[in-house]
Amino acid sequence: MTDSIYDSSKFKRKALQVSVAQSMISQYINAGDIETVRLQESHGRTLAQEISAPHPYPHFRRSGMDGYAIRSADTDGCNSDQPIWLEVIDEIPCGKVSDKIIISGTASRIMTGAQVPEGADAVVMFEMTEVREEKGKSIVGLKRSIEVGKNITPIGLELQAGELILSPGIKISAGEISVLATFGIHHVAVYRRPRVAIFSTGSELLSVEEPLQPGKIRNSNTWMLASQVIEAGGEPVILDAIMDDLSLAREKVEYALNQYDMVVTSGGVSVGDYDIMGDLVRGDSVEMLYNKVAMRPGSVTTAAVKEGKLLFALSGNPGACFVGCELFVRPSIRGMMGDQNPYLPEWSGTLGADYPKINSFTRYVRAKVEIRDGVIYAIPKGVDESGVMITIKDSDCLIVVPPAQEGLKSGAKVRMLMLK
Amino acid sequence: MTDSIYDSSKFKRKALQVSVAQSMISQYINAGDIETVRLQESHGRTLAQEISAPHPYPHFRRSGMDGYAIRSADTDGCNSDQPIWLEVIDEIPCGKVSDKIIISGTASRIMTGAQVPEGADAVVMFEMTEVREEKGKSIVGLKRSIEVGKNITPIGLELQAGELILSPGIKISAGEISVLATFGIHHVAVYRRPRVAIFSTGSELLSVEEPLQPGKIRNSNTWMLASQVIEAGGEPVILDAIMDDLSLAREKVEYALNQYDMVVTSGGVSVGDYDIMGDLVRGDSVEMLYNKVAMRPGSVTTAAVKEGKLLFALSGNPGACFVGCELFVRPSIRGMMGDQNPYLPEWSGTLGADYPKINSFTRYVRAKVEIRDGVIYAIPKGVDESGVMITIKDSDCLIVVPPAQEGLKSGAKVRMLMLK
Repeated sequence: MTDSIYDSSKFKRKALQVSVAQSMISQYINAGDIETVRLQESHGRTLAQEISAPHPYPHFRRSGMDGYAIRSADTDGCNSDQPIWLEVIDEIPCGKVSDKIIISGTASRIMTGAQVPEGADAVVMFEMTEVREEKGKSIVGLKRSIEVGKNITPIGLELQAGELILSPGIKISAGEISVLATFGIHHVAVYRRPRVAIFSTGSELLSVEEPLQPGKIRNSNTWMLASQVIEAGGEPVILDAIMDDLSLAREKVEYALNQYDMVVTSGGVSVGDYDIMGDLVRGDSVEMLYNKVAMRPGSVTTAAVKEGKLLFALSGNPGACFVGCELFVRPSIRGMMGDQNPYLPEWSGTLGADYPKINSFTRYVRAKVEIRDGVIYAIPKGVDESGVMITIKDSDCLIVVPPAQEGLKSGAKVRMLMLK
Repeated sequence: MTDSIYDSSKFKRKALQVSVAQSMISQYINAGDIETVRLQESHGRTLAQEISAPHPYPHFRRSGMDGYAIRSADTDGCNSDQPIWLEVIDEIPCGKVSDKIIISGTASRIMTGAQVPEGADAVVMFEMTEVREEKGKSIVGLKRSIEVGKNITPIGLELQAGELILSPGIKISAGEISVLATFGIHHVAVYRRPRVAIFSTGSELLSVEEPLQPGKIRNSNTWMLASQVIEAGGEPVILDAIMDDLSLAREKVEYALNQYDMVVTSGGVSVGDYDIMGDLVRGDSVEMLYNKVAMRPGSVTTAAVKEGKLLFALSGNPGACFVGCELFVRPSIRGMMGDQNPYLPEWSGTLGADYPKINSFTRYVRAKVEIRDGVIYAIPKGVDESGVMITIKDSDCLIVVPPAQEGLKSGAKVRMLMLK
């Protein structure tokens, strides 16, 4: 009597290409709730409103120099033999609006950034002038003709009123905050950070506080995933790990899907005897989207949906868990915040060392970027078994190695997904 | 009578090269206070302790497959005509330590990640076996010889006990957190975020809440700087802007230097009539380090020190303010957190468009990186006057254009400082 160890439903999995799995997921992603935060709290958040310029910028004719506001025509034909002299009728510091109109024969002393007075059409810098006191009046001498518009930043040089400046879905950083402040947007609409529940499964897991025990390991994936979720813009909610028990898992998943925006688990998706997340997803408590992806590490990466909320059941192997999160969880979080480019940025580069391993699935190899004379190299980080945890910290990209009969030689052109 | 408009002390400034100014600053930077945070709060913080492996990793012989733990010698010479049959004496899920020693003729069913039992020296995957029930016992058949060590991850493959894993000064992200959790480090020593007081000076400044007024602009630099300080790892403390009043500035600087770890101001460092920060730094309330740097934008960038604390007085022009913060404030903050590489990462690349502007000072041109077929291009972002605020958000690097008699042509090799 021969016993097929394999329950066929466990093993006859259909492997989807990564891009197919990603696009399947994307159908369940909608930009989420919006909240309003103060400008000083907006750094790192994702913009949820369109920003158009409410006024031109600059909104007044701005002096680009410390100098004198003059009429260009007054300087026509003047030179060092025949300087012209103008009466200084005002001093204009930044923020002051002069009520003295510049007419022929007059000038106003003006500071960088101040509003150019009416009548003036040029600013001549201090260094090109000479000042005298004559009959109790201050006069300024020029020895060169100055063209119209010199040292004046015209209204709307940078932006016209109504111009679109920022679109929803962008991450707010220094440059965006500068724009928001300039236009008086002191409260900003941002996407609420999706709350992502995370837990690990596995009877071998110890908590990070527990002393080591034979045959057991500490639960590190939960913490790693939490960090990846923060980096993507989400808010991780860490739940306790559970042992390999299907009914416990079902209860936990139902609770988490009910309470939070997304659920990510690690472990229990292989084809072994205790793969409770695999069993759960094949059951009827959630709708399975896929349970095999044509990728290494992490071919067992699984996704399901329930009432519009996504459940990602990632591999328990640290390397596979990391990659699964970057390829599927990250874009889901970014997509829930309206990001139009939610996937890892893709670069092209040159392989910096031989990569002999071959595979029938696309392999995502942890690697380090090196720039040599303006050319991008990707250096694979040694061993790359899915279980290898230590190289995750040393990697800033994933090399995409397509399935092939032969390994890749140093110098080969490769695609890279950027992690940092 | 000729009036020299320029007070010589204002104008006879000695311009330092950027690297000289940076190294002058670095003498006042010491790694700061350390605090302990919980692992889940350590993301994005800067590690302040050295982490060596307290135990090897993995710390037990780990099965790399779902299969059977066997003695390799038992399989010598077996093949499909002459299979060998072993008695299955135990089942070993993850986390369980089997007390059944594998002796010749026996095997134990084992799951991926579980501890390989004593006596076994190989694991054969399920797919290569056949299982039968015979006389109430379960036996497993093999048709191929299995080499010693097959599918067993040896103790310490990734790390030996005592190996250095993480050094102080690194930013903690997913890979580092994975390591910390694995080794049971649930409380982490990190550098306290330096508290950086920020304020702007200028009588033309409106608060971000105020309606626009003729000749005035909203204070955007304070908010932009706060964002840059957060990005660098510091904690910004936003103080109200002040009008152009020297005694007010002196009071504010003294208060801020007393209360916080560093002070950054924007505005008031030009050579005009109201450049109060320039006047302040030339006075005796602080010790001036430099008040001119051979760079554009931001040649007026100024630094001073008082009782070991740094004051940076940056230009009020948004572009110059941004660059000054990245070149001087950022590395100071990073240095106070023990970062051994506190400066912006430098790349080499190819200029993607002509850059005709020439200058006697090194110019830091805001630009966007483009990767074309594995080669890095830097595309300058249009107008690059120091006052131009709008292109900051569109830039992810600064092209370093050295002083030269001619502009740069598209295709020129350039250095780039990476912003994102």
